[in-house]
Amino acid sequence: MTDTGARRRGRPPRAESADTRDRILAAAREEFSERGYEKSTVRGIAKAAGVDSALVHHYFGTKEQVFAAAVEVAVAPALDAPDAVADAPLDQVGERLTRFMFGVWENPTTRMPLLAVVRSAVNNETAAAVFRRLVAAQLLRRIAAQLDAPDAELRAELAAAQLVGTAMLRYVIKVEPLASVDVERIIARVAPVVQGHLTGP
Amino acid sequence: MTDTGARRRGRPPRAESADTRDRILAAAREEFSERGYEKSTVRGIAKAAGVDSALVHHYFGTKEQVFAAAVEVAVAPALDAPDAVADAPLDQVGERLTRFMFGVWENPTTRMPLLAVVRSAVNNETAAAVFRRLVAAQLLRRIAAQLDAPDAELRAELAAAQLVGTAMLRYVIKVEPLASVDVERIIARVAPVVQGHLTGP
Repeated sequence: MTDTGARRRGRPPRAESADTRDRILAAAREEFSERGYEKSTVRGIAKAAGVDSALVHHYFGTKEQVFAAAVEVAVAPALDAPDAVADAPLDQVGERLTRFMFGVWENPTTRMPLLAVVRSAVNNETAAAVFRRLVAAQLLRRIAAQLDAPDAELRAELAAAQLVGTAMLRYVIKVEPLASVDVERIIARVAPVVQGHLTGP
Repeated sequence: MTDTGARRRGRPPRAESADTRDRILAAAREEFSERGYEKSTVRGIAKAAGVDSALVHHYFGTKEQVFAAAVEVAVAPALDAPDAVADAPLDQVGERLTRFMFGVWENPTTRMPLLAVVRSAVNNETAAAVFRRLVAAQLLRRIAAQLDAPDAELRAELAAAQLVGTAMLRYVIKVEPLASVDVERIIARVAPVVQGHLTGP
């Protein structure tokens, strides 16, 4: 008992610290999602997380670094895509990747942080740079590395363009009928296109 | 001379009125582009155009209506796409539409207002509704009307998704190598995909 009391006055124990980090990241995603990157502040994120600004700086650093951490958590499921895709035979890569992406977008829990990332990246150069570094460097290069083509990176990006554009029109701009149609009808049309970009002639 | 003087004190002559409208719209695009839809104000637009707020309201109405007018001018070249596409044989529709879109995006004069529209539409529901009405209803439905398929609208939207996504990654997020590669290399890969969406099996 005395021991716990003593620890509480000093550096928080590891479990508590992880909990605080998560709370700050959740608050950050909410803040970036609602206010966008530019209008968001470390102070506002700290307040929403119920902690002091200094603690946010201590854990993450600058606002850009908080954003990067929030994005990394948000796109973490998507960053597993290359592994999911790597298991697939080469002629099923398009289908796997497409299903994976729509799985992330159709799930309300992962859709919200993704929307926050997209909104911020479209409006702010710093946020766009974070998006480029994480999504382009980590996700697309890893997919490209599995392709045996000289223009593998361009192929991966044009495949991503079909997926990003479809997500934009379905989930962000909400153009009908695309916004309401069953996701399986979309996958049936989009997966062969993604496959074609990646492994076509 | 007396006549001109008299007219100047009353309603402005038609040419001057068109000039003022253009100045207000240019100021509006600048304002929406820099500040986004939510932070933009009719007062700020009026100030930038060197006119009174009441004149902006007189010509266009509410902020939403100013935005719609600014968007309409910005996407006007793109709204000619269905006509450009209509002239093409059905097996060249993909190439025509793709070239048309990249022509608009590669031109710095039309790229800036388009960026403003995309940024605002991604971040604000009112702006997204304007985008839907103009782009979806006017542009995509007119293209779909030329297709002889039961799911023509969905096809047109998925073709648009490839174009929108490519523009996002090239011009907004600036993912490399897509952002720097010669546009002809992109068109060579994207046009067949757009064609496939519109007229494929």
